[in-house]
Amino acid sequence: MTINVKNFLKGKPKLSKMGEFQELEGIEGLEISAVSADLYGTGRDDLCLFYFKDGANYGAVYTNNSICSESITWNRNLRKKFIKALLVNTKNANTFTGAQGLDGLETLSKTLSRTLTLKESQKKDGTKNAIKPNEILFASTGVIGEKFPTQQIKGTIQSLVDKLREKQNKFVWFKAASSIMTTDTRPKLAFETCKIGNKDIKLSAIAKGSGMIAPNMATMLGFVFTDADIPSVYLKSLLKRAVSNTFNAITVDSDTSTNDMVAIFATNKVKTGKVYNILDPKLKDFEASLQKLLLNLAKQIVSDGEGAKKFINVKVINARSQYMAKNIAFSIANSPLFKTAMAGEDPNWGRIIMGIGKSGEKIIPEKIEIKIGEFKVAEKGRISEEYNEEKIKEYMKWDSIAIEVNLKLGQASFDCYTCDFTNDYININADYRN
Amino acid sequence: MTINVKNFLKGKPKLSKMGEFQELEGIEGLEISAVSADLYGTGRDDLCLFYFKDGANYGAVYTNNSICSESITWNRNLRKKFIKALLVNTKNANTFTGAQGLDGLETLSKTLSRTLTLKESQKKDGTKNAIKPNEILFASTGVIGEKFPTQQIKGTIQSLVDKLREKQNKFVWFKAASSIMTTDTRPKLAFETCKIGNKDIKLSAIAKGSGMIAPNMATMLGFVFTDADIPSVYLKSLLKRAVSNTFNAITVDSDTSTNDMVAIFATNKVKTGKVYNILDPKLKDFEASLQKLLLNLAKQIVSDGEGAKKFINVKVINARSQYMAKNIAFSIANSPLFKTAMAGEDPNWGRIIMGIGKSGEKIIPEKIEIKIGEFKVAEKGRISEEYNEEKIKEYMKWDSIAIEVNLKLGQASFDCYTCDFTNDYININADYRN
Repeated sequence: MTINVKNFLKGKPKLSKMGEFQELEGIEGLEISAVSADLYGTGRDDLCLFYFKDGANYGAVYTNNSICSESITWNRNLRKKFIKALLVNTKNANTFTGAQGLDGLETLSKTLSRTLTLKESQKKDGTKNAIKPNEILFASTGVIGEKFPTQQIKGTIQSLVDKLREKQNKFVWFKAASSIMTTDTRPKLAFETCKIGNKDIKLSAIAKGSGMIAPNMATMLGFVFTDADIPSVYLKSLLKRAVSNTFNAITVDSDTSTNDMVAIFATNKVKTGKVYNILDPKLKDFEASLQKLLLNLAKQIVSDGEGAKKFINVKVINARSQYMAKNIAFSIANSPLFKTAMAGEDPNWGRIIMGIGKSGEKIIPEKIEIKIGEFKVAEKGRISEEYNEEKIKEYMKWDSIAIEVNLKLGQASFDCYTCDFTNDYININADYRN
Repeated sequence: MTINVKNFLKGKPKLSKMGEFQELEGIEGLEISAVSADLYGTGRDDLCLFYFKDGANYGAVYTNNSICSESITWNRNLRKKFIKALLVNTKNANTFTGAQGLDGLETLSKTLSRTLTLKESQKKDGTKNAIKPNEILFASTGVIGEKFPTQQIKGTIQSLVDKLREKQNKFVWFKAASSIMTTDTRPKLAFETCKIGNKDIKLSAIAKGSGMIAPNMATMLGFVFTDADIPSVYLKSLLKRAVSNTFNAITVDSDTSTNDMVAIFATNKVKTGKVYNILDPKLKDFEASLQKLLLNLAKQIVSDGEGAKKFINVKVINARSQYMAKNIAFSIANSPLFKTAMAGEDPNWGRIIMGIGKSGEKIIPEKIEIKIGEFKVAEKGRISEEYNEEKIKEYMKWDSIAIEVNLKLGQASFDCYTCDFTNDYININADYRN
């Protein structure tokens, strides 16, 4: 059985095999709840708690923006390799909130740790489990500079803890993924299984993000949960490698949030034996699955880009280096002129040429070959002889468009993912706070 | 008397003192004509010829895009310090046109030099004046990758030469400035006078550009004409210095054309005596006037940005270096999220914060002070205590908005100019070729 997402798609580009959500499975050692602190004034869920009764190893990567959320500053200062909970709030970014925002996190971490400790002490199995304030991570997404709603969130913590679900079926995951949305039009979920040695491992993940990054609302968050038994230091390395071609290969509007955070949590419930280093062949399948999972989420984010009607893959091949390929791919994918041409379904390859040149990379114009879909549009420094505007225009009507730039200079390549730039993007962002 | 431009403004932001065009005066030694080769199929002027009977010194700067127009390649290869003519065409960028585009310029330069030489030989004053193909510069703006219309242009050269006007009144300048427009909604003209020694010097200039640069159509071109007697090497240095805070301080959409060109031509008709170096005090007034002239044109370009409803000045002060100030100013001014907020008249200063941080510059968040107009919105790492949304929202309705970011780190500053990002930008660029 699958959950039908017709209501969520509303004319958005569909990724192949993405018409229906994957069914996420529960991760042993993880409990989830999502409730409303009524931060939006509409009663929608706006708080999500991930609780690891027996703790979790984790690795996280954060925004490169030199101004960042108090929540990210809090996480960075923890310097812990083992945590107990992650609390996510929407509506307020807790950025440029000064001492008030930081104090708010102090307050919430104390209340939440006390409430969780109390819950544990009431369990009849006699185990003692004390949760400390510095074992809690935070993630926030919403408007910058508005007062952090400490009291409203604090007042909802009891209910959040009461509603923790030890067994997560797909509906629990769906509710969690929905509770962290801002301008997203649909929740983002992904699931993979893999082997470490002869043990079956699960990876369940959710994400949010719509403007690649509108600091006001469309921060990119991604959380992966696994039952594998992997030390934090390796989780972080694996995550860093995996984001470079996934979350860091997408762009909606070239802006970078103050609140971005992608993290992986391992509950260590499936004992897979000691891992001696990051290149251990035992981790190969796990790493491939993590990569696949994050790419899936990254594509979901971009295809749900603010106002997006088309999903676009910009592939640069045969570059001198991966750096060069990436630089050119993003130079094209971030160009408002390229993105508006895509929105207009216009095979306006001059704007691809402009994007290549704008990158500042040393290319040889006469060598460049450009394809839109399967159609060659430019080669040998001019329009392709087989150029057929009719056919390409037909192709441009699809909701998933592939652009390939062959530089013929080397062997490196990079795939970057973006969406088109429509009137809806302007409308969403011009009128957001009203 | 002034030319009323009500018809050109059509709800566009008006710069102070720009409600009416300046009256340009003729430059001795220069002749101008503008005609239609019917490249648009509408009969509008699309060719403009600037002819210097006795030649002109000149300096030019070109696009940084590593793919550029054949016209720019032609100019770069001339390596001449003294030229006779500049021919500007619109509709076709002559970019990615391969050998056909370059051959076209060969053909046109031969036809034009022959036609001009013939005209000179028919003059009754008995002077002999032979114009060579390699004394002609070209500038093109329009669609990339389409066949260069050599024959259509060639067929119009006789008429172009026949219509050369030795005396330019403001109407001649207006016609010239209009003939080089693409998506511009109004022609761009500027005029200054200054002194070199005790001699009166005139500077008349025209420009075009609407997308900061849409390679398809909205390349930025700027041409300055003066009767001063200044060697080419100094003209080039003066121009380079002047563009850094004028033409290079504006952005509409962060894209860089393959066809940008700004040039200054000196007919040497007013003898001002030898200049020994670029720092000669004699040139001070001239340099200040050139700077003022180019800033005027640059602001006209940005306020006529594609779809622009607002003119925006982003000023970064007290930075550690000018490089830092410029980097942060452009990081804000190029952000689609900032520009859409401006379009929505939303004093959404979180997006300014995001832009500052995105620049990658090392700032101290607690020191930053942000003003929108005269209103302080953020300081000490949070919203300003005197923040008054009502008053600021009222200010946001103006068609010229000033943003000031005070970093409090040093003494350097940079002013950058941009426009808002509206639905019209999307519409113009999505549907351009249709």
